Amino acid sequence: MTRVTVWNEYHVEQEHADAREVYPEGIHTAIADGLDEHGFETQTATLDEPEHGLTEDVLDDTDVLTWWGHDKHDAVADEVVERVHERVLDGMGLLVLHSGHFSKIFKRLMGTSCDLKWREEGELERLWVVEPGHPIAAGLPESFEVPEAEMYGERFDVPAPETLVFNSWFEGGETFRSGCCYRRGSGRLFYFRPGHETYPIYRQSEIRRVLANAVEWAAPVDGPKPNYGNWNS
Amino acid sequence: MTRVTVWNEYHVEQEHADAREVYPEGIHTAIADGLDEHGFETQTATLDEPEHGLTEDVLDDTDVLTWWGHDKHDAVADEVVERVHERVLDGMGLLVLHSGHFSKIFKRLMGTSCDLKWREEGELERLWVVEPGHPIAAGLPESFEVPEAEMYGERFDVPAPETLVFNSWFEGGETFRSGCCYRRGSGRLFYFRPGHETYPIYRQSEIRRVLANAVEWAAPVDGPKPNYGNWNS
Amino acid sequence: MTRVTVWNEYHVEQEHADAREVYPEGIHTAIADGLDEHGFETQTATLDEPEHGLTEDVLDDTDVLTWWGHDKHDAVADEVVERVHERVLDGMGLLVLHSGHFSKIFKRLMGTSCDLKWREEGELERLWVVEPGHPIAAGLPESFEVPEAEMYGERFDVPAPETLVFNSWFEGGETFRSGCCYRRGSGRLFYFRPGHETYPIYRQSEIRRVLANAVEWAAPVDGPKPNYGNWNS
Amino acid sequence: MTRVTVWNEYHVEQEHADAREVYPEGIHTAIADGLDEHGFETQTATLDEPEHGLTEDVLDDTDVLTWWGHDKHDAVADEVVERVHERVLDGMGLLVLHSGHFSKIFKRLMGTSCDLKWREEGELERLWVVEPGHPIAAGLPESFEVPEAEMYGERFDVPAPETLVFNSWFEGGETFRSGCCYRRGSGRLFYFRPGHETYPIYRQSEIRRVLANAVEWAAPVDGPKPNYGNWNS
Repeated sequence: MTRVTVWNEYHVEQEHADAREVYPEGIHTAIADGLDEHGFETQTATLDEPEHGLTEDVLDDTDVLTWWGHDKHDAVADEVVERVHERVLDGMGLLVLHSGHFSKIFKRLMGTSCDLKWREEGELERLWVVEPGHPIAAGLPESFEVPEAEMYGERFDVPAPETLVFNSWFEGGETFRSGCCYRRGSGRLFYFRPGHETYPIYRQSEIRRVLANAVEWAAPVDGPKPNYGNWNS
Repeated sequence: MTRVTVWNEYHVEQEHADAREVYPEGIHTAIADGLDEHGFETQTATLDEPEHGLTEDVLDDTDVLTWWGHDKHDAVADEVVERVHERVLDGMGLLVLHSGHFSKIFKRLMGTSCDLKWREEGELERLWVVEPGHPIAAGLPESFEVPEAEMYGERFDVPAPETLVFNSWFEGGETFRSGCCYRRGSGRLFYFRPGHETYPIYRQSEIRRVLANAVEWAAPVDGPKPNYGNWNS
Repeated sequence: MTRVTVWNEYHVEQEHADAREVYPEGIHTAIADGLDEHGFETQTATLDEPEHGLTEDVLDDTDVLTWWGHDKHDAVADEVVERVHERVLDGMGLLVLHSGHFSKIFKRLMGTSCDLKWREEGELERLWVVEPGHPIAAGLPESFEVPEAEMYGERFDVPAPETLVFNSWFEGGETFRSGCCYRRGSGRLFYFRPGHETYPIYRQSEIRRVLANAVEWAAPVDGPKPNYGNWNS
Repeated sequence: MTRVTVWNEYHVEQEHADAREVYPEGIHTAIADGLDEHGFETQTATLDEPEHGLTEDVLDDTDVLTWWGHDKHDAVADEVVERVHERVLDGMGLLVLHSGHFSKIFKRLMGTSCDLKWREEGELERLWVVEPGHPIAAGLPESFEVPEAEMYGERFDVPAPETLVFNSWFEGGETFRSGCCYRRGSGRLFYFRPGHETYPIYRQSEIRRVLANAVEWAAPVDGPKPNYGNWNS
């Protein structure tokens, strides 16, 4: 039974009426509900909790962590970032969502600026599956739409994904590598683009399916723990 | 329940005493026994059966096919190769084992010569796990040995693996990319190096574990079936 | 001095008025002119020449081969395909252009169906550079447009490119991995999407720049010629 | 004309007799001599210089930076690391050598621990070229030996290289991915394993050839400078 901790900054939904209206109980609650539907055991954690809710105890009970942040990335303590980083290298899965591209933990794991273009006009996004045999594409149609989306456009300044699962098309003329798989240490990492706070994207069934598939895919594997340092075989 | 068909040329074990001694019931039986132990549903098929045992009916009941061949690669009918090829593109998993590197189906899927160096001196091979978080490495130590192996050495003329799971070290001075993951169409393919006919490699527990992990990893995913051709969205 | 052979089927421009009007001297001539401008030494070869113009002598004088074909792919002799295939594995560069995705040589090197969606409505294509530091992106803006294009849409059934340089956006709602780098044997291969016979795409400066960059990138490297077979180090 | 800055910690050669004997003028001098031989314009910089010799002015004149450090990684100022990091993302090439695997800049770009096994017994290393068509393999034999080497063994905790050029074999039973290519931002990065301070590795002709090839490969490309942020196309 894969255990998921859903992390959220949880500020914009409390501070802005348009986000509060869409996610009155916070984006984390909508994400956790979607994962519950798919049979995962979930808990949530948010920025304002002590240690941002990501204590060693909580992480001990976490197989996969999902991360949504918006404009308080700098408020996340470096100590907690390092703690999460170590867990990922030890095998914990990580899903980085939408504006989480600028989170400290994502930049820490990517080694790049993670910058991109954006435009907030509620335009149509169509996601195309480019790897139909990938576990994260299970149960999906070959393309699906997000009717109103914040646009993210290339160049997305990340290392080339080890596997690219989705490519997005935007009404206004941009494309984006929207579903990017990485391995860091023994852990797996999936970046998934959709998820703006003023659209009900995390209630959409295809989006929930992607998140559930990605959690399953990113769950830890019982592989060898490597030895490091001075070595006499 | 993942269903595996274990394919074997099944000539060398009947024709050569040293192979017969190690695999009196054929290599396919030893491989199937190992997969049975790990809970898979297995059947076998061999070169001399009609259609090499790989009829449409058999393939309808196959989630993952394993392929062992030695020096009768040319005796495999092109029609059967094309049939297997289509199945892989449609999502069937494929494990290509040891001297199967020169099989028609592997060369067909790789697009290269698949050539390599070899030496048959029963030397020590040590396999190092280079991706400890990969599902195919589950339950393994960080390295393990095959006490007597036929050496395969680089340059291995294949496209760079999408993921490299094992790197082999040989007593005589060579290395080899021994566990190579690929995706072709909707199917997944794993090449695994060890497995010579005169050593009991397919009875070794680590080898059996790798094969079981690889079968699990290569099993088909219920992803979208892409549309091709003239398209009006 | 990199020597390029520009291969063309050269039927559609002779048989159809709309293609003849755009490329009265054939697509090969337009491609070769563009490469001449960029300082390469070029020659051309076409389907109807003996051995399709790709004799051993011609290939001896070829560092990089470009391939444009449309609907006579089956008319290319297997023997010539095998000859070109061997040259690629030995280090010759190969550029496969537009409808060349269905050529025998491309399918031979990819190992997949190479299928895709298409639509011929003269719609707008915008190509985004996703790897601005790649040599094939030198001298380009971060995006550029083909005003009238035949659409190609995902799923493009090829192995995931080792490097993806361009992502295309189409007016009608599709995306496509338009610039795909591969290595096969000692040779390098670049697939480039734009190039329909009824639009003057091969006269467009950005397209000519891409082709010139790609030729430079795919030129042979004086690397080691691997030994294969029975080996005693 | 590619301009190279060769950076060295330059402590161990001053503090330890065995290193001083091999590199009386410092490892940087030996590396720079090798690059001079191959026609590059070189300058050197070391830890104890102001700003470690890596001022904005020096970096303005640097196309490719090479990095050798040993046990003073923590003495490198974070500000200089960030400066180098930005330059790499903007297109400067970076060669990270041997014990530089634990440098701040390499860890910053990889996002992982960069840990490994090591053993200092002067054992034989044999490097195998696994990608004979890669520019970094130009002019090399298919394998070459370092007669006395410090062993580095897998698991090497880095993201899987985008291209693996060399695989090392060690007398004592280990393998290592010794030549690893990455792209970060618009910059290219090559990690090359050999290079211990008590062996004359940087005077060996094959090693010098690899470094020269890698400098050439990593040199900046005149690609587009992406726009980021709020975007209206």
